[in-house]
Amino acid sequence: MRVNAYAAPAAGEPLAPTTIERREVGADDVLIAIEYAGICHSDIHTVNGDWGPQPYPLVPGHEIVGTVTEVGADVTRHRVGDRVGVGCMVGSCGECDNCRNGDEQYCRKGMIGTYAATDRDGTTTQGGYSTHVVVDADYVLSIPEGLDPAAATPLLCAGITTYSPLKHWQAGPGRKVAVVGLGGLGHMAVKIAHAMGAEVTVLSQSLKKQEDGLRLGADHYFATSDPDTFEALASSFDLVVNTVSAKIDVSAYLGLLAVNGAMVNVGAPAEPLSLNVFSLLSNRRTFAGSMIGGIAETQEMLDFCAEHGIVSEVEVIAADQVNEAYERVLASDVRYRFVIDTSTLA
Amino acid sequence: MRVNAYAAPAAGEPLAPTTIERREVGADDVLIAIEYAGICHSDIHTVNGDWGPQPYPLVPGHEIVGTVTEVGADVTRHRVGDRVGVGCMVGSCGECDNCRNGDEQYCRKGMIGTYAATDRDGTTTQGGYSTHVVVDADYVLSIPEGLDPAAATPLLCAGITTYSPLKHWQAGPGRKVAVVGLGGLGHMAVKIAHAMGAEVTVLSQSLKKQEDGLRLGADHYFATSDPDTFEALASSFDLVVNTVSAKIDVSAYLGLLAVNGAMVNVGAPAEPLSLNVFSLLSNRRTFAGSMIGGIAETQEMLDFCAEHGIVSEVEVIAADQVNEAYERVLASDVRYRFVIDTSTLA
Repeated sequence: MRVNAYAAPAAGEPLAPTTIERREVGADDVLIAIEYAGICHSDIHTVNGDWGPQPYPLVPGHEIVGTVTEVGADVTRHRVGDRVGVGCMVGSCGECDNCRNGDEQYCRKGMIGTYAATDRDGTTTQGGYSTHVVVDADYVLSIPEGLDPAAATPLLCAGITTYSPLKHWQAGPGRKVAVVGLGGLGHMAVKIAHAMGAEVTVLSQSLKKQEDGLRLGADHYFATSDPDTFEALASSFDLVVNTVSAKIDVSAYLGLLAVNGAMVNVGAPAEPLSLNVFSLLSNRRTFAGSMIGGIAETQEMLDFCAEHGIVSEVEVIAADQVNEAYERVLASDVRYRFVIDTSTLA
Repeated sequence: MRVNAYAAPAAGEPLAPTTIERREVGADDVLIAIEYAGICHSDIHTVNGDWGPQPYPLVPGHEIVGTVTEVGADVTRHRVGDRVGVGCMVGSCGECDNCRNGDEQYCRKGMIGTYAATDRDGTTTQGGYSTHVVVDADYVLSIPEGLDPAAATPLLCAGITTYSPLKHWQAGPGRKVAVVGLGGLGHMAVKIAHAMGAEVTVLSQSLKKQEDGLRLGADHYFATSDPDTFEALASSFDLVVNTVSAKIDVSAYLGLLAVNGAMVNVGAPAEPLSLNVFSLLSNRRTFAGSMIGGIAETQEMLDFCAEHGIVSEVEVIAADQVNEAYERVLASDVRYRFVIDTSTLA
């Protein structure tokens, strides 16, 4: 099945329209007519080759919402006409302890990424900047009714990436949570942490987006460019979710944690960080990482968001605006996520 | 009250006999006739000025066991004749949330160290390489009957420093725990983790102490100088307790952690570590620090050790052997802790 898509022809080259082959719908597969595909910062890193060499042409996109148009013979989980989503993974071994525990993203054999990964059949996966995709039904999520499909699209990556650590480190009533960075991930973290009942503080470079932050659910907003911030907030947070992938002074941020506090990175700078271990010894602090979430947890997050009326703040664009959107993402000029209307690819 | 002691006259100079003043026994104090004082690696760092300028003359020693010879009017916790211990702290504010939660070591006003710290009355605290010490009864531990007093002495620092993170990160049946380094701290970590029911692996530079490690309670023993070790043990531990303060390739060790695994440093290199954050993202790993333990937890540890017949492996020395012992500690030539018989100071 040949379908329209937007692909990077090579590292660093602008994305351009093309067609790609989708596999036939197997017994366990569903065919999804894509409606929306979100633009994640990691799409840009990947197509630029920042994270190592990639297979080209490369169709990015791991925030996908669409409608099921065909199901394989053995599929019971989804039906034709269902509104569904696909996130960052389309497969895993399903048999290791981590998969069995619902941590498919940490599959011991490696999860299969939604794009630029080697699929079970040896082909290279291609992502959501496309009109259709065929996915193993076990890795397809149900989009609850009531969620706007365009605005729900970023939940599939930005939503679960922030929900999972917030839940794991018990954001909730009586807990003080800081969110570092108010971008695509950060604005979701603020909404979700607020809905979980935590007291939420945004730590952003400047106060430029303060009004937004408070409107989205933050209780407090501080500029990290002001050194007084680190003194005023010393030893005060139970959890700091760092959504900034750039290199930061991690020891300074660790100083913000109270006893047993955790700072969790949901992204990583390409270069190693310099870490003063004394900042961990004091207050029994932890520095942790978290990568998306498992399939069941992603469904739980979608249901949580539907229950609390949470979606992403999005700017919907046509496919031919993707390259311009990439430049704007790199310039932090989006509030807060671009979503491609894939009907413009038809 | 003037008492005999062994003190460093200045940074880098050998310790020598001297006398020091102990305060009068206040209403809340106990006077302890010291029997034994352990030699901790941090004594050496401190007297050498590795951790910043210190007050001299400086009497080190924060592993103290002795007998109560006098109690203040308001003391109910200890009686004359009791065998007691003092660890790394002799005071804290007692009022902040951390103190109230039993985390006096993380007191928001700063715990008062057993030596080289400013006491409540403005004097400088002096440690256990001495015949007597006066300590606020709330910071004095009971040494359970049945524990050999000399061999129990290192429990006051090496014991609690390893017990606390092992308990906090739930070492126990079904959990795989690695101990990095088999020295004063490491050998205690092995004994305690084994007694807690965990499956214990020692990760040491070489296999030189393998026989000891297995005798002390380890189930497995690997040399970290062998690169195969890191491959063979990848993603396999729930907890790695790092007792080595030297700079190590922390990202390599983090690779040994299974999903939700934690690596906990109980010491810190003077220089910052270089950390690849990708090693944290995978498996939702955490890198943490831990510093001794609270007073109630220290008592719990002593009771646990008595119940399980755990003491340190010690080499008892006379006070005039301290300088030689320091050299041997720096050369890792002790199995596994020096303890000064302070009767040799009388």
